[in-house]
Amino acid sequence: MKSSTYLEALIRKFSKLPGIGPKSASRIAFHILGMTRDDVESLARAMIELKRNTFTCRFCGGISDGEVCTICQDQTRDRGLVCVVEDAKDALTIEGTGGHRGLYHVTGGLISPLDGVGPDDLNIGTLVEKCRGDSVREVILAFNPSVEGEATALYLARLISPFSVAVTRIAHGLPVGADLEFADTATIIKSLEGRVKI
Amino acid sequence: MKSSTYLEALIRKFSKLPGIGPKSASRIAFHILGMTRDDVESLARAMIELKRNTFTCRFCGGISDGEVCTICQDQTRDRGLVCVVEDAKDALTIEGTGGHRGLYHVTGGLISPLDGVGPDDLNIGTLVEKCRGDSVREVILAFNPSVEGEATALYLARLISPFSVAVTRIAHGLPVGADLEFADTATIIKSLEGRVKI
Repeated sequence: MKSSTYLEALIRKFSKLPGIGPKSASRIAFHILGMTRDDVESLARAMIELKRNTFTCRFCGGISDGEVCTICQDQTRDRGLVCVVEDAKDALTIEGTGGHRGLYHVTGGLISPLDGVGPDDLNIGTLVEKCRGDSVREVILAFNPSVEGEATALYLARLISPFSVAVTRIAHGLPVGADLEFADTATIIKSLEGRVKI
Repeated sequence: MKSSTYLEALIRKFSKLPGIGPKSASRIAFHILGMTRDDVESLARAMIELKRNTFTCRFCGGISDGEVCTICQDQTRDRGLVCVVEDAKDALTIEGTGGHRGLYHVTGGLISPLDGVGPDDLNIGTLVEKCRGDSVREVILAFNPSVEGEATALYLARLISPFSVAVTRIAHGLPVGADLEFADTATIIKSLEGRVKI
């Protein structure tokens, strides 16, 4: 038996969000109970507005407030450099580092025959169109270092090869701050293969 | 620069909830983006409804959908046994274990002179009223094992002593599954002091 059905309902709903278990959900629900009514309504409104007002950018396939996202609209960015990522979350992660001043292209997934995902299921056509033009100078493939990521990278590299566009891939190796002693074999092999001249 | 101001706004709001950092907030925001509009509106509504429709139970001081909570209303529960807790969250935790079949009483805090919280700031008066009547047989004090918890427990025990009500305190000792070797000194001392006959 619970003292409040509303509390129960919210805890159940929060438990379904990624990374939130029943204990965290309960903690959040009690926190919301302690928030002002204005703050709660503002949080609720932010969720609904996100769902209502965000679209897929016509150019990059990322998340946008309008037809074209602010990054694609920004004329100060390097339009010759396109970073290709699996999903909009990855674009946001890279953008957050400030390490990329070019544009993005979101494939919306990776080639994975086991899951029945082929090239036709991905947002690849517009990337090829961009490469066919004169503006793109380099395409950086920034997929996760998985079998599917590698397969998709190889597929795209072959697809873009007819155009005069350099295709690169982000480096896979030891993360900054890591210890060689505790690194896994695959990562050490990748870091040896990807060695650079100093 | 971010691709969506709505996404940014929601991530910022979620980051303020307890136990949610910027990375989790971003993960949750993207999850919400992938939910159906109905599900998002239902989650938003649940938050607003919790805030609008929950009150403090007139009897126990816990959270309630109406003037009196369902636990206090339930005539099948042992009305002679009252478990006193610091806040409604603790009542929910104990209720979740199924180990208590009596009623609850929420003090709404602990006596803490350093924080300027005295007995008058707590919901204690109604507890004394309950003990003055004939119905209550035992009061179980279930505060966290902290200095404030101990101080509040001692204060309440003294306050209730004039009435024919047994005052007990939940056991402090080694948690189930713990290892003596790694337990802290204070816990081991508490477990020795609180030893029981077998």
